[in-house]
Amino acid sequence: MHDAPISGRARTPIWLAIATALRDNISEGLYAPGDKLPTEAALAKKFGVNRHTVRHAVSKLVDEGLLRTRRGSGTFVTARPTEYPIGKRVRFHENLLAAGRTPQKRLLHIETRAVSAEEAQVLDIAEGDPVCAFHGLSLSDGLPIAVFESLFPITRLPGIERALLESRGVTEALGVAGVTDYTRKSTRLTAVLANATQALHLQMREGDPLLRSTGVNVDLEGQPVEYGRTFFAGDRVTLTLDT
Amino acid sequence: MHDAPISGRARTPIWLAIATALRDNISEGLYAPGDKLPTEAALAKKFGVNRHTVRHAVSKLVDEGLLRTRRGSGTFVTARPTEYPIGKRVRFHENLLAAGRTPQKRLLHIETRAVSAEEAQVLDIAEGDPVCAFHGLSLSDGLPIAVFESLFPITRLPGIERALLESRGVTEALGVAGVTDYTRKSTRLTAVLANATQALHLQMREGDPLLRSTGVNVDLEGQPVEYGRTFFAGDRVTLTLDT
Repeated sequence: MHDAPISGRARTPIWLAIATALRDNISEGLYAPGDKLPTEAALAKKFGVNRHTVRHAVSKLVDEGLLRTRRGSGTFVTARPTEYPIGKRVRFHENLLAAGRTPQKRLLHIETRAVSAEEAQVLDIAEGDPVCAFHGLSLSDGLPIAVFESLFPITRLPGIERALLESRGVTEALGVAGVTDYTRKSTRLTAVLANATQALHLQMREGDPLLRSTGVNVDLEGQPVEYGRTFFAGDRVTLTLDT
Repeated sequence: MHDAPISGRARTPIWLAIATALRDNISEGLYAPGDKLPTEAALAKKFGVNRHTVRHAVSKLVDEGLLRTRRGSGTFVTARPTEYPIGKRVRFHENLLAAGRTPQKRLLHIETRAVSAEEAQVLDIAEGDPVCAFHGLSLSDGLPIAVFESLFPITRLPGIERALLESRGVTEALGVAGVTDYTRKSTRLTAVLANATQALHLQMREGDPLLRSTGVNVDLEGQPVEYGRTFFAGDRVTLTLDT
């Protein structure tokens, strides 16, 4: 409020009027979600004010979550994040369809390898047992929202590698391997920074925020059938948990 | 493995031997969780190798999660993160005691203000109604793990501001205001980067990863009694979800 006149009848401060104008521009679609906003200098010229005033207005819209500033690359209109429920049943395709998005998975890499000691404990198999490691990319309306590595115990799931290559998704592949249904046993969540490889796949910048989710799915007998590590793009996904 | 000899009997590559030595140093407590590791140059001198070899060894321990590199500030021994369950009942003090940690909350700022349109909708009160906004810091074993803002609807909770100031925690304060029990209705999670203020309170660097959790607690009649926004330090907290 320090821009308001000290005495006399209150009027709208200029920075606040500019914030309102920018908000209107965004809601009218002049600047769409994901778009880069013009530079401070360009906006200052457009509105006939100084850059300090523009910065003040932009800062208000950043606080409101409507704009997002990326270090060294500018200010962007925030895209509406995909809402992704995590609970007892986590299904990528169902989740995205329910959110009104088009789901898509892209295979990056698939391999059979020996399981590490930590992974063996989670999957309840012996260290060194073979696992199928599926590396992929999850997309929402064509935009990458997550990179993941999922491990499947081969001794428990004969034919899983081929099933994954030939199926539309994990649920279908697990069905082919004999798992009629599965549920999420546990999920662990934290925040990390994107490394160069993750940033490349997710079309982000190195050092952008990722939400790391580690989850174990079990079959109806409680046997682990999948150990997944997923890195969600922080600005594109909101995990939701209804209790 | 490209450091291994091309022919002859296999021996442990030097970088791997150094990784093992560093791992032993950490497990013996020479470098404690949270400690900064000596510089590459210092380690190269200590082990009598070049910096490339040290970097290779450090990189292996970063992959293992034992070390963590912070841009521009060095390499640190990873602290064991506090495990924090989120489910139907989220209780800070209980959660930390169950994890074997000493819980502590620190008041940063408390105020009464008019509720915004978005907040009013979540709390199911009228826009502009008064809310008590409690800004604080959560600590685990004396280390800050989260900054938060919690909003309490004053019309629904008469005396809540004084109760918060005089109580040991939110549960006790809500009890004083007549709420005998409350449960978590919903939680929304994403990852963001720490701003300067958050970094200061959390003793982190600006741009470090935070896990943002937004949650609504309701009383036994389903009426919202708290709308909280919490920013957890990504390297100090793992949210866990058992389903």
